[in-house]
Amino acid sequence: MTNLPPRVFIKEEGPREGFQIERAPIPTADKIRLVDALSDTGVGHIQVTSFVHPQKVPGMADAEAVVAGMTPRAGVRYSGLWLNQRGLERAIATGRLDLEGKLTLYASNVFLQRNQNRTPDQQREAQPALIAMYQAHGIPVRTGFVTAAFGCNFEGDVDPARVMGLVGDMLSIAADHGESLSLMGLGDTMAWATPERIRRVVGAVRERWPDLELSLHLHDTRGLGIANAMAGLEMGVRHYDAAVGGLGGCPFAAHGGAAGNIATEDFVFLCEELGIKTGMDLEKLAECARLAESIVGHPLPGKIKTGGSLRALRAKIAAA
Amino acid sequence: MTNLPPRVFIKEEGPREGFQIERAPIPTADKIRLVDALSDTGVGHIQVTSFVHPQKVPGMADAEAVVAGMTPRAGVRYSGLWLNQRGLERAIATGRLDLEGKLTLYASNVFLQRNQNRTPDQQREAQPALIAMYQAHGIPVRTGFVTAAFGCNFEGDVDPARVMGLVGDMLSIAADHGESLSLMGLGDTMAWATPERIRRVVGAVRERWPDLELSLHLHDTRGLGIANAMAGLEMGVRHYDAAVGGLGGCPFAAHGGAAGNIATEDFVFLCEELGIKTGMDLEKLAECARLAESIVGHPLPGKIKTGGSLRALRAKIAAA
Repeated sequence: MTNLPPRVFIKEEGPREGFQIERAPIPTADKIRLVDALSDTGVGHIQVTSFVHPQKVPGMADAEAVVAGMTPRAGVRYSGLWLNQRGLERAIATGRLDLEGKLTLYASNVFLQRNQNRTPDQQREAQPALIAMYQAHGIPVRTGFVTAAFGCNFEGDVDPARVMGLVGDMLSIAADHGESLSLMGLGDTMAWATPERIRRVVGAVRERWPDLELSLHLHDTRGLGIANAMAGLEMGVRHYDAAVGGLGGCPFAAHGGAAGNIATEDFVFLCEELGIKTGMDLEKLAECARLAESIVGHPLPGKIKTGGSLRALRAKIAAA
Repeated sequence: MTNLPPRVFIKEEGPREGFQIERAPIPTADKIRLVDALSDTGVGHIQVTSFVHPQKVPGMADAEAVVAGMTPRAGVRYSGLWLNQRGLERAIATGRLDLEGKLTLYASNVFLQRNQNRTPDQQREAQPALIAMYQAHGIPVRTGFVTAAFGCNFEGDVDPARVMGLVGDMLSIAADHGESLSLMGLGDTMAWATPERIRRVVGAVRERWPDLELSLHLHDTRGLGIANAMAGLEMGVRHYDAAVGGLGGCPFAAHGGAAGNIATEDFVFLCEELGIKTGMDLEKLAECARLAESIVGHPLPGKIKTGGSLRALRAKIAAA
């Protein structure tokens, strides 16, 4: 009935997506401390920072310092985020990141307009220039991403057929320019997904492109994040973005009740209990979540950091 | 593939289970205010308070005052909790509660010993005296409850066969004493449930007693509460306990990182998006969650109270 994958791959986005929304400045040393602690959890991929304009996002002005200060560990992929050529060049200049090009289309025209000030045609037409930029730097383009794939606060529900169209567009654009996408991300950017919508969209894309690896980027704004991840697992999806502690989320109204990505440790706990391998050490990860909480100085939404894992309890019971 | 019920029934336990764990005293008037606000949400059943020893649980010493102060609304069932004859007599004396007898067995011997200082045989043997007590007061006995049905912090995983045995025991004990149980609660008391375990246990009980209505009491201590409720919905379970705002839970380490029941409004949101009727007004319920948060004076874990419902967004988009 379900199709749980034997192994999943997690991209840890806490240091990037999480610290970005914090109001109080986070000391560079603390960011490095968290990245280094995460490196020791067995995670395969950490998105370390964001190379955005320091005046627009002052909290990310220390991007280079964070990358220079971290202690890379063999087997972990360290990446960054950028929004334009200048950002990419800064990321390249660090000489320490594993960079990959990504195409992005939006399943909401209004959101695209607000976010990028572009029409859908303009966004599509901008992708070849992106590919050329990556090719000029010898950076592979392997990933596509659909923003607002499950719904949008400005446009409402999104038809799965529209997502299919965007996936097809990105695959064609890449192929037309000598690239081949192997991973397609579906972003629940504004938290409209439900387990049923996950099944519908993933099912439709899967049926049309059975060999395309899928990734889910889930926000927990409306409390369904882990239930949606469960639906993804049942559909056999193997790639997930997550943020340690649920970084980026905050229960305080003063933070606008922000809710970040699903908490990495809660998702790893779910996988562990389902017998799905993550390669990660849940106790070390919970320790990272507590570290993240002490760094931001307010409660983070992840549960396992206080609730504790069952593996630990079973070991205690077995030893008694 | 799934068997979503068209309608679910929610027992709101926030005022009882939630306020009980708060460290700071909650003014009686605030408790009444929340009960009255909940009465206006369309909820069918509110567990108002707990008739426990005022010296053991000082925060519940005002049980009678809360019941006397609330304004009952037609169509809402108001109930209370008690642990012994004295508590039951106090609940009866209010003259305002809809009382029902409940049998309880434990799927963990160690937890039973710690909680009730009884062996499993002693617990079973205590049930007929309970039934007699209810019968003496003309109170129907319709519900059974399995504590720790999915696992226990002291004993570990629970075999579904053990849950089946306890359900069978309660049905027999009731039948032997002239009562017939129509609702069987499965309590994830210590948050060991996963969607798979829900399916296994519910599936086993359902197969043996297809006409027995089931209820799930889920804690979100390890972040799987809503995913577990989703699994219950997919198994066709129609009754759920929940606590507005996730009352009883608190992200502060100072509260031991307590995690209460699933947040009523997050569960109602899930149902609404799945097309399952709850009879409740989600916007009013979210307002109750914000009221509960202001009463306890610290963030509560429920998400919809800040994340907002999609129905509200859809209406706004349609009106634009």
